Amino acid sequence: MITKQTAYEPFTTDSVVDYLKQRELINPESPVVCEEIGDGNLNYVFRVTATDSNRSLIVKQALPYAKVVGESWPLTLDRARIESESLLQAAKVVPELVPAVYENNPVLASTVMEDLSSHTVLRKGLIEGKRYPELAKHIGTYLAYTLFYSSDFGLEPAAKKELATRFVNPDLCNITEDLVFTDPFFDHETNDFPEALRPDVEEIWADDNLKLEAAKLKQLFLTKGEALIHGDLHTGSVFVTEGSTKVIDPEFAFLGPIGFDVGAFIANLILNYLSQEARLTDTSERNEFQDYLLAVIKETWEVFTETFSGLWKQDGKGAFITVPGYLDYVLSQILQETVGFAGCKIIRRTIGLSHVEDIDGIENSEARINVQRAALQVGRKLILKRESQEKIEDVIALVRGAGNE
Amino acid sequence: MITKQTAYEPFTTDSVVDYLKQRELINPESPVVCEEIGDGNLNYVFRVTATDSNRSLIVKQALPYAKVVGESWPLTLDRARIESESLLQAAKVVPELVPAVYENNPVLASTVMEDLSSHTVLRKGLIEGKRYPELAKHIGTYLAYTLFYSSDFGLEPAAKKELATRFVNPDLCNITEDLVFTDPFFDHETNDFPEALRPDVEEIWADDNLKLEAAKLKQLFLTKGEALIHGDLHTGSVFVTEGSTKVIDPEFAFLGPIGFDVGAFIANLILNYLSQEARLTDTSERNEFQDYLLAVIKETWEVFTETFSGLWKQDGKGAFITVPGYLDYVLSQILQETVGFAGCKIIRRTIGLSHVEDIDGIENSEARINVQRAALQVGRKLILKRESQEKIEDVIALVRGAGNE
Repeated sequence: MITKQTAYEPFTTDSVVDYLKQRELINPESPVVCEEIGDGNLNYVFRVTATDSNRSLIVKQALPYAKVVGESWPLTLDRARIESESLLQAAKVVPELVPAVYENNPVLASTVMEDLSSHTVLRKGLIEGKRYPELAKHIGTYLAYTLFYSSDFGLEPAAKKELATRFVNPDLCNITEDLVFTDPFFDHETNDFPEALRPDVEEIWADDNLKLEAAKLKQLFLTKGEALIHGDLHTGSVFVTEGSTKVIDPEFAFLGPIGFDVGAFIANLILNYLSQEARLTDTSERNEFQDYLLAVIKETWEVFTETFSGLWKQDGKGAFITVPGYLDYVLSQILQETVGFAGCKIIRRTIGLSHVEDIDGIENSEARINVQRAALQVGRKLILKRESQEKIEDVIALVRGAGNE
Repeated sequence: MITKQTAYEPFTTDSVVDYLKQRELINPESPVVCEEIGDGNLNYVFRVTATDSNRSLIVKQALPYAKVVGESWPLTLDRARIESESLLQAAKVVPELVPAVYENNPVLASTVMEDLSSHTVLRKGLIEGKRYPELAKHIGTYLAYTLFYSSDFGLEPAAKKELATRFVNPDLCNITEDLVFTDPFFDHETNDFPEALRPDVEEIWADDNLKLEAAKLKQLFLTKGEALIHGDLHTGSVFVTEGSTKVIDPEFAFLGPIGFDVGAFIANLILNYLSQEARLTDTSERNEFQDYLLAVIKETWEVFTETFSGLWKQDGKGAFITVPGYLDYVLSQILQETVGFAGCKIIRRTIGLSHVEDIDGIENSEARINVQRAALQVGRKLILKRESQEKIEDVIALVRGAGNE
């Protein structure tokens, strides 16, 4: 009887059904279908559907190691608590933009939550050239609310410190510290790129300027406890329909720099933008879709900054909130850090461990390598030129320009 | 029997002796003398001497409120744990520069430690115009070792995060957040200054540029978890003899910006420097002592940066340590933040709650107000011009120049 267990054990498609029925999260009398649908690297994801009522649930269970690597890479189960608590934290301010959490079991490192089968993974949708009219508004809102209300701008200092202690997340932070901020800039065994790209990669490894800027960005990630960030906000962590957007998988959450979340989202849109060079062969169709992606970046930033500014004026904490120029300073810092973090993310997804389907799925290898090459160029420019980015249009011009060089 | 108590109770001069004898920290047979010698704001400090052996001990006990304000300002007793753990942490790397800790009792919020009666409080010594030839070397070394080995430069990321969780210190941080970084910049009831200074103070309150920079510095204090800092390293937290230096009272310790410790020490030397305008009437004597103080600032910075650089090269963690320019970047950031934090500290000690004896002890009120006015000028310049400070000589020129305007 798994419910009586006091120790962790991985679920099977059978035991997870028993568990849900015993907890009466699913009607014990119902016939059910259960499938393991996880395509991530670190967890099991079961979908359990009662076929009579068609009620379905997701059970996400952390594995004590990284699934992609195997048991040689142990990972704390505490990340399941962090993920569910982070979802609950987000639900306080943007309940419509995250899946509902029904139960968290710290022993089993499992979370029972809303099934989002009606939604598509955003990455998949974008690869297929789909457009989501509400996406930018939703993500901009998600970013503004979750980040503002977990920062010192929206929280009293003591509450912020209490939040920080609940989201200390060394194992998952370590993945980012290594795979995003370190390994791609050095000849490290975790890197993963085709031989044809080696000259470009070696240029990165030899570029002391770039490495200095990467070091600064890594230091920010290590030391800047600005807000409770999602920590892994790529387009695989966003589920969408035409009118609904849900942010999932915040297991990397911790008190970090705001720009890391904004940058992760933008980076993945840029990766898709670059991949379309090889995906959409019709020029005008390609141009239009790429324009759409850049418009999403622009609108996401605008909604984020307008909403964040509104919250600042309405709910800002502390005597300095009304000092002229302070909000502008904060937003300009966030933009520059967003740009730098986006650059690191793009480089990592191109030559580090764990790529994106947007690019890896390009069948023609020459075309794929051209896209990877362009990605390295864009990533590099974003890192090196981040401090001269004054507005989102600068970033968009940089992306547009880099693709054409 | 106080040793059987399971609840907090403040010591008396009698009960503290019973306690030490029961714990056999003092020979139970010895005749003893006990006196309460605390002149701080937050704690009792008892000195207990066995008169036969002349062996003496200090027992420091946290009060559940700020002594200076009274019971209306409650303060966590956990700061006693933080203080003793921080002393033990420092003793791992610079045992000769902190008092030995013999016992910590979390229930009584008390620490039994080495008596430093042979030493003088540095502030008192400097007020009397004394010089300490080893001071700069010792404090530079203390700063370099304690800060390097508690930063991401000297610790693995997971160990750093573990350290951070042990030193979450909301109550004490809040004192600094309010009294150093906020109240002096606004018309707040905690401020404390003579009416004659009001025009200068109102100029500060009306200076939006200054307030913007103070906001940025406060944000750094709130968010930059760079190293385990002392948190209150003024000249009252340093005990000295000719050849020995001991840093005490790290109850404000938390993971904060390195520059806050360096800046606190420098700020208090600058305050003494300015006070000598009214203290030493003989011009050449004054010039010489002021030169000495500036030389201490310069040497402290040089010893700090040279030692920190040596540790970086010898023990630096992570792949980026050897990237050209990274160490220089880190040190230049620390210098700029040091300067800004020093400016905030100087302004606070002049018009905020809790002044320094260096200035408040000047008997002639006109002379005292002139010193205070100069302090506000220097503080302001340090805050506003911190980003153009490239080397410690710039800072010294700024201090020298501001005094003469």
